[in-house]
Amino acid sequence: MINLGPPRQATHDPHVNRYATRTRGMTASEIRALFAVASRPEIVSLAGGMPFLSALPMDAIAGVVADVVREQGTTAMQYGSAQGIEVLREQICDVMALEGIDGNSDDVIVTVGSQMALDLVARVFLDPGDIVLAEGPSYIGAIAVFTTYEAEVVHVDMDDAGVVPQRLAEAIDALRARGRLPKFFYTIPNFHNPTGASLSFERREQVVAICQEAGILILEDNPYGLLGFEGPPPPALRSLDESGVVYLGTFSKTFAPGFRVGWALAPHSVIERLTLAAESAVLSPPAFSQLVVSRYLATQPWRSQISVYRTLYHERREAMLEALAEYMPPGTSWTQPRGGFYVWLTLPPGLDAKAMLLRALDSFVAYVPGSGFYADGSDAGRRCLRLSYCFPTPDRIREGVRRLAQVTMAELEPVSREWEARRTVVQRLAGRVRTATVSRSR
Amino acid sequence: MINLGPPRQATHDPHVNRYATRTRGMTASEIRALFAVASRPEIVSLAGGMPFLSALPMDAIAGVVADVVREQGTTAMQYGSAQGIEVLREQICDVMALEGIDGNSDDVIVTVGSQMALDLVARVFLDPGDIVLAEGPSYIGAIAVFTTYEAEVVHVDMDDAGVVPQRLAEAIDALRARGRLPKFFYTIPNFHNPTGASLSFERREQVVAICQEAGILILEDNPYGLLGFEGPPPPALRSLDESGVVYLGTFSKTFAPGFRVGWALAPHSVIERLTLAAESAVLSPPAFSQLVVSRYLATQPWRSQISVYRTLYHERREAMLEALAEYMPPGTSWTQPRGGFYVWLTLPPGLDAKAMLLRALDSFVAYVPGSGFYADGSDAGRRCLRLSYCFPTPDRIREGVRRLAQVTMAELEPVSREWEARRTVVQRLAGRVRTATVSRSR
Repeated sequence: MINLGPPRQATHDPHVNRYATRTRGMTASEIRALFAVASRPEIVSLAGGMPFLSALPMDAIAGVVADVVREQGTTAMQYGSAQGIEVLREQICDVMALEGIDGNSDDVIVTVGSQMALDLVARVFLDPGDIVLAEGPSYIGAIAVFTTYEAEVVHVDMDDAGVVPQRLAEAIDALRARGRLPKFFYTIPNFHNPTGASLSFERREQVVAICQEAGILILEDNPYGLLGFEGPPPPALRSLDESGVVYLGTFSKTFAPGFRVGWALAPHSVIERLTLAAESAVLSPPAFSQLVVSRYLATQPWRSQISVYRTLYHERREAMLEALAEYMPPGTSWTQPRGGFYVWLTLPPGLDAKAMLLRALDSFVAYVPGSGFYADGSDAGRRCLRLSYCFPTPDRIREGVRRLAQVTMAELEPVSREWEARRTVVQRLAGRVRTATVSRSR
Repeated sequence: MINLGPPRQATHDPHVNRYATRTRGMTASEIRALFAVASRPEIVSLAGGMPFLSALPMDAIAGVVADVVREQGTTAMQYGSAQGIEVLREQICDVMALEGIDGNSDDVIVTVGSQMALDLVARVFLDPGDIVLAEGPSYIGAIAVFTTYEAEVVHVDMDDAGVVPQRLAEAIDALRARGRLPKFFYTIPNFHNPTGASLSFERREQVVAICQEAGILILEDNPYGLLGFEGPPPPALRSLDESGVVYLGTFSKTFAPGFRVGWALAPHSVIERLTLAAESAVLSPPAFSQLVVSRYLATQPWRSQISVYRTLYHERREAMLEALAEYMPPGTSWTQPRGGFYVWLTLPPGLDAKAMLLRALDSFVAYVPGSGFYADGSDAGRRCLRLSYCFPTPDRIREGVRRLAQVTMAELEPVSREWEARRTVVQRLAGRVRTATVSRSR
């Protein structure tokens, strides 16, 4: 049996009456609690969204970082500006141009990963009680930020083609009818975390039009846009609307997360406020990280490296989809991502992904249960789980899915028996006997 | 005439009605507005608190960073834990032991500079309207954080031996009488920013006792503690009280700021909340920066490097104090720091350091006016300014002080004339004529 550690001790916290109200919204994420266990070598982890860094040219990067110290040391190790280093902000504009964005480096702020950009946007826009629209499900780390700033997250349904514009319009109308206007619509249009879905071209224009008409900002979070397996990257929402979109990007997936270099592109008046907020949050982002990323972009074939990642993740997605089709029991369904890191899987009716996790860890496979991807603690996501194919090798992915399938099938047995028992009771109560089949559709 | 750039355009900001209430407290710091100008080579900047990084062994550090990539690349460039890397947290405990602190690595969180630690502490403890006690004057970046979280900063008088315990007790009593209890007392006990003062040994025990008795946390900010010019570092307040002090440290001044590695040491229940807040703020601090600092501490003579810095800053302080004594006009006074980066200077009566700054820049010398070091926008600090001796060479320091003295003396002339004019008017109104001398005492 996997030991998840001793239960949290209920020792008295002498500071308990001193904490701010917002700390009530700060709860440990299910992912974090899981990672300590999932990182054991005997477990196939389909949980974390860690890029496969062994694909990087380590010797070349060792040269880059040493050159940064030798040639730019007194700048790289010094304090910098809160907005970030100018030359890197220009290079970021070149990266964004690949997705159709015509941005100006003055309107870019460099952040400590795009997580910090999320935090700054929330800090600048959200008062307690404000409403944020977000896809349901949505990125756990974004939900954590909005909750920290005591905002209410209202989820909008999505399907295989991303958020459903009709549902978005309805959600806005319903809020308006209550006299409320959301502060922004948070969306991951490309290779969504956790569903893997991408917003279709037609819907991009519809979503932008709906938000423009309603006067709602769009917060476009795009970590995976350059990691598509089919054709060129889709146009960013920001390429369709300059003044109504705050765009977030990162080098964590196209290069490496350990430097923590992300960014926001926003209308200039917003950038001024984000910069003030950043100065108070961290003074300045790490100059060393910024100059390493900048020199990497200037001296290394970074577009080819993205192709390397893309090919690698494409193979792994294939391995995962094939294994799912081969092993999973009827009644299970899953998404078909065309890029990014994630498959979103729905278990057969009656199963609970969170309850099943301990047994999965016992069978040496890990995933992230779906409920954490919803802010409202509802039953949504209970049957769902997120599988990542980015880090393990194809063989390990197949083995992990095989184990997951076994756990799922074992889990189904008592469910079937329980249903059988319940049906018998109902039938007896109804005083009649008839045969019925348990639905186990794929 | 130095051009500070075009006045801010009063263009319409379409997002102006969307910002959170807290943005009203976010104003551009006087230091930031100044830095673009002060960094011009023709200006002697006595403004910024930038460590003198040319004193670092660049070749050795180039080796350290390359080794981190070659030997720990897939960890250094990957996501890490929100609390920070274990081995670095252990090394941080070794560093803190130099100031008498017996800390446990479980109770340390690594942050993006100690500025982020300040932000996290504020996030976890401060509700809008809460009160924070702080020395008057105090660090601008801390005031910015407390203001961002909509807290009220109440200043407590200090003198050459640090905060005055009697004044601290009185401030707490006055607040209690109004039914208010401050959330914490923020203090920089060693080589204070901006005054350079250090809290005397006796006062350390008194301050701890006062805060313990009142049930107020101490937030001890200690960037400069190891940069004293006389004898061993004084004992940290945290060494006198384990459960009532949150201690903040950083490698920005003892090594280099560009990696942005700072930390907080706090009671474990507080660390758990700071870690949750950090996860939401940046996911994790840069693993690369952490492993560089860790390897630097493990393989390089970091204690000798601190001695190098100490000797260098000692010489520069001497240059500054000698130049001040030689050049400044009577009526000017200044502090005598025994470590750290700063001298706090009070101009002769009637002068205004902020108004004088433009003329100082015109004479090619820069400083930070004193008013920004107070939260309350009062007249406190109007005659004061902060001079840094950490970055310029002794020759440049002497030249900068000479220019500052000339500007000050020129500034005194019209003041004297204006006083003369006013006195004449008063005398005429009073209908009597008598001679008087303008007071210009040192």
